[in-house]
Amino acid sequence: MPSKYDDRSMALHRELTGKIETGLKTKIETIDDLSTAYTPGVAAPCRAIDENPALARELTIKGNSVAIVTDGSAVLGLGNIGPEAAMPVMEGKAMLFKAFADIDAWPICLGTQDEQEIIDTVTRIAPGFGGVNLEDIAAPRCFHIEAALQNLGIPVFHDDQHGTAIVLLAALINAAKVVGKELTDLRVVISGAGAAGSAIAGLLRCVNQDETVCVPVRDVIVCDSRGAIHARREGLSPEKMGLLAYTNRENRSGSIQEVLEGADVFVGVSVGGLLKRADVEHMAADPIILAMANPDPEIEPDEAKAAGAAVVGTGRSDHPNQVNNVLAFPGLFRGALDARAPTITAKMKLAAAYALAEAVGTPTADRVLPDPLDKSVVPKIAKAVAEAWDGKPAVLPG
Amino acid sequence: MPSKYDDRSMALHRELTGKIETGLKTKIETIDDLSTAYTPGVAAPCRAIDENPALARELTIKGNSVAIVTDGSAVLGLGNIGPEAAMPVMEGKAMLFKAFADIDAWPICLGTQDEQEIIDTVTRIAPGFGGVNLEDIAAPRCFHIEAALQNLGIPVFHDDQHGTAIVLLAALINAAKVVGKELTDLRVVISGAGAAGSAIAGLLRCVNQDETVCVPVRDVIVCDSRGAIHARREGLSPEKMGLLAYTNRENRSGSIQEVLEGADVFVGVSVGGLLKRADVEHMAADPIILAMANPDPEIEPDEAKAAGAAVVGTGRSDHPNQVNNVLAFPGLFRGALDARAPTITAKMKLAAAYALAEAVGTPTADRVLPDPLDKSVVPKIAKAVAEAWDGKPAVLPG
Repeated sequence: MPSKYDDRSMALHRELTGKIETGLKTKIETIDDLSTAYTPGVAAPCRAIDENPALARELTIKGNSVAIVTDGSAVLGLGNIGPEAAMPVMEGKAMLFKAFADIDAWPICLGTQDEQEIIDTVTRIAPGFGGVNLEDIAAPRCFHIEAALQNLGIPVFHDDQHGTAIVLLAALINAAKVVGKELTDLRVVISGAGAAGSAIAGLLRCVNQDETVCVPVRDVIVCDSRGAIHARREGLSPEKMGLLAYTNRENRSGSIQEVLEGADVFVGVSVGGLLKRADVEHMAADPIILAMANPDPEIEPDEAKAAGAAVVGTGRSDHPNQVNNVLAFPGLFRGALDARAPTITAKMKLAAAYALAEAVGTPTADRVLPDPLDKSVVPKIAKAVAEAWDGKPAVLPG
Repeated sequence: MPSKYDDRSMALHRELTGKIETGLKTKIETIDDLSTAYTPGVAAPCRAIDENPALARELTIKGNSVAIVTDGSAVLGLGNIGPEAAMPVMEGKAMLFKAFADIDAWPICLGTQDEQEIIDTVTRIAPGFGGVNLEDIAAPRCFHIEAALQNLGIPVFHDDQHGTAIVLLAALINAAKVVGKELTDLRVVISGAGAAGSAIAGLLRCVNQDETVCVPVRDVIVCDSRGAIHARREGLSPEKMGLLAYTNRENRSGSIQEVLEGADVFVGVSVGGLLKRADVEHMAADPIILAMANPDPEIEPDEAKAAGAAVVGTGRSDHPNQVNNVLAFPGLFRGALDARAPTITAKMKLAAAYALAEAVGTPTADRVLPDPLDKSVVPKIAKAVAEAWDGKPAVLPG
C-alpha cells in the first residue's frame, strides 16, 4: 500500500494545511466595494433571484459549483476510514475539477453512513450547488443513493461508477480499432461486481439507453470472487440479480478462468495478481486486457503481453494506457453545467466516452487513451456532453 | 429598499457569475504533482488522519474552513426569500471571511426551513469544517438551532445574534467613556426582541458568564412592537419569557417611549423612524443612540443630535460610528480556529468586544468604533479571543 510518493505527500499536506482555499473574484478594499459586493447592493441580485430562481445560475456560483460528497466508507484502497480521513482525497478531487474544467468544487464529508440520512443531507444542501459528485461511497449504498437523487434538478453522479465506466469504454473503443475487431462483436468478462464493475457492465450494455445511440457489446459476463454471476447461483444480492437483466446472456457459470476462455476482453476492477499467464493465453486472438486493480493490476502488463495480449491498460501512471477517471469527470461535469442539464443521461456518458476515444486521433496498442494530464481533452468532452443533452435546461423547483 | 448601489451590484454579479471560487494552493501540472497531491500519495495523509483524527486540522482545510449555513428565511431586510436567492449574501460573507481573516468559507444554502432538519444537516456536514456560521435564519428557530449544535466539536455561531451584540457592546464601552459614565451604571432600552435584540440583551447582562469577567449593565429593558417585555404581559413567547430572567429588573411596563424616559442608551434593531425627537429629549443627560435599523435608522442622526444625543451610531456606512458585523466575526472565528476551540463562550465574545473597543484608541463622539475596513482590527480580536478560550483544543469525536 505505501507508495514512493508518501513522504512527499505528507510534507506537502503539512506545508499547505489544506490544498484548496476560497478564492475571491473581486476585491473588498473600499466602502464602495463592500456596498456593491455586499450590503446594501447585494439585495438587488437577491431580489432578482427571488423573482426568477433560474437567475441563480447567472448571478451566483451555483451554475459552476459542485459538491464532492463522501461518507468516507470506501476511500481509495483504504476502505472505511470515515469523513475526516477522506478529506485529503476530496480536496485533491476539488483541485482536479478546478485545474481541468474551471469548476468550483468543495468537499462535503458526511458524519453519517446511513443511506437515507445521506440522501436527505444531499437533498438539503443542493440549492447552493450546480452538481453533486458522489465519491468513495461503498456499494451497494452508492447505487441507492445515486438513484434516489436523480430528481434534484442538478446532476448527481457517482464518479467511482460512471467515471470509470466512461474511461473504460473509451479505451475499449480504441483497443477494438487497434486489434481490428468490431466493438459490438466483443465478448467481455469483468472481474469485480462492485460500484465500478456494475457501472461498466451497464454502460457497455447501454442500460436505459436510447437504441439509436446504443453500443451493444455482444456479451458481458460479470464475475465476483465466486466466479460468474449467473441466474442459477443462489444467494445473489438484489444488485447482482439486477445485473442478470443485461449480462451473461448465455447464462454461463464457472470460475473467472473458465468464462474467460475465448473472451476478447478482460476488464479488471478487483484484486491484484488475479490472472495467470495461461488465463490470457486461453482467451480469443489478440486479447485486450484492462487490468485496473490498484496499486497492483490483476496481471502485470509484461506478463500479459508475453501471453499474447494485443492491448494492455492499467490504473497506473507508470504504464501506457492509464485508465484514470480524471480523463472523464471534468469534461463531463463541464458539459452538463454548460447545458444546465438537470441530470447526466446514458447518452451523455456515451458521448463523453466517444469524444474521449476520438481525442486520441489514431490509436495504437500503447495509446488507446490520451495522457491524463492532457487538458485539451476537457473541452472536447464538454462539447459532446452538452450536445448530447437534448432536454430542457434545469429549472429550479419552486 | 432600493439603494444607489443596486445597478452596479447587478452588473458586478452578472459579470462575475459568483463572487467566490475554489482556489488551488499548489499546481497540478505533472504526473508527479498528481501523484503527490492526489493518488497514490494522498493515501499517506488519509492514513495519518485515520490513526489520529486531530491531524485533520493540520493536513486538510478543516482547521481553517467555515460553513456559512442559511435557510434563506430572514435574509437582510428581504425576509424569507429562500436558499437560492440568499446565495449572493452568503458569497459576500465568504468574501469577508477570506479578505479579513484568511478563513476559507463556503455557502451552504439549505432547501429546508424545518428546525430539526437544519440541525441534522449541519451535524452531518460538520466533519469537513472547522466552524459553522449560521446566517439569516429567522427567530426563534435560530435560537434553537444554535443551542442544539453546541456539542459538535466545532464552534457554531449565529452571527446575526452575537456578531451584532459584540460590535454593539464595543460601541457602548467607548460611548460610555465619551460621555463619562460607567458602563455598569447604564440603563439601556433595546427596541427589537428578535435574534439581534435578544443576543444584545444577553451579552450586556452577561448571561452564562463567569462573574470575574462579567459586565453587568445595570438594567436592560427589551421592547417589541407592543412595548416593554415584562412579567405581567400575557401571551409572551417562550423566548421572550426567557429574556425576563435577566432584563427589566424593575419589571416596568409601557410603550417604548415610556420606558425610554430617563434611560442612558437606546439600542435599535427594529424599524426605521420609530423614535421622535421628543423621545430622545426625555432620556437621561448625554444619551447614547445606537439606531441600527436598515436601511433607515430608528431616528436620523441629525435629529438625534439636535435632541441632545451625545453619541449616535447607525448601521449605515454614510454616517460615523457604523455598527457593522464585519468588525467582529472575522476576528472572532480567526481566534476560535487558532485556539481550536470547540465552541465560542461568552468570555470569548466579551474579549472580542473589549479588544474591538480598545482598537479605537481614544474614542470620540464620532468614533466609538474602528472603520469597518480597518483590517488591523482582526488580529487584535483574534488574539484576545484565542486567549479567552481557556479549555482544551477540540478533539474530534470518534
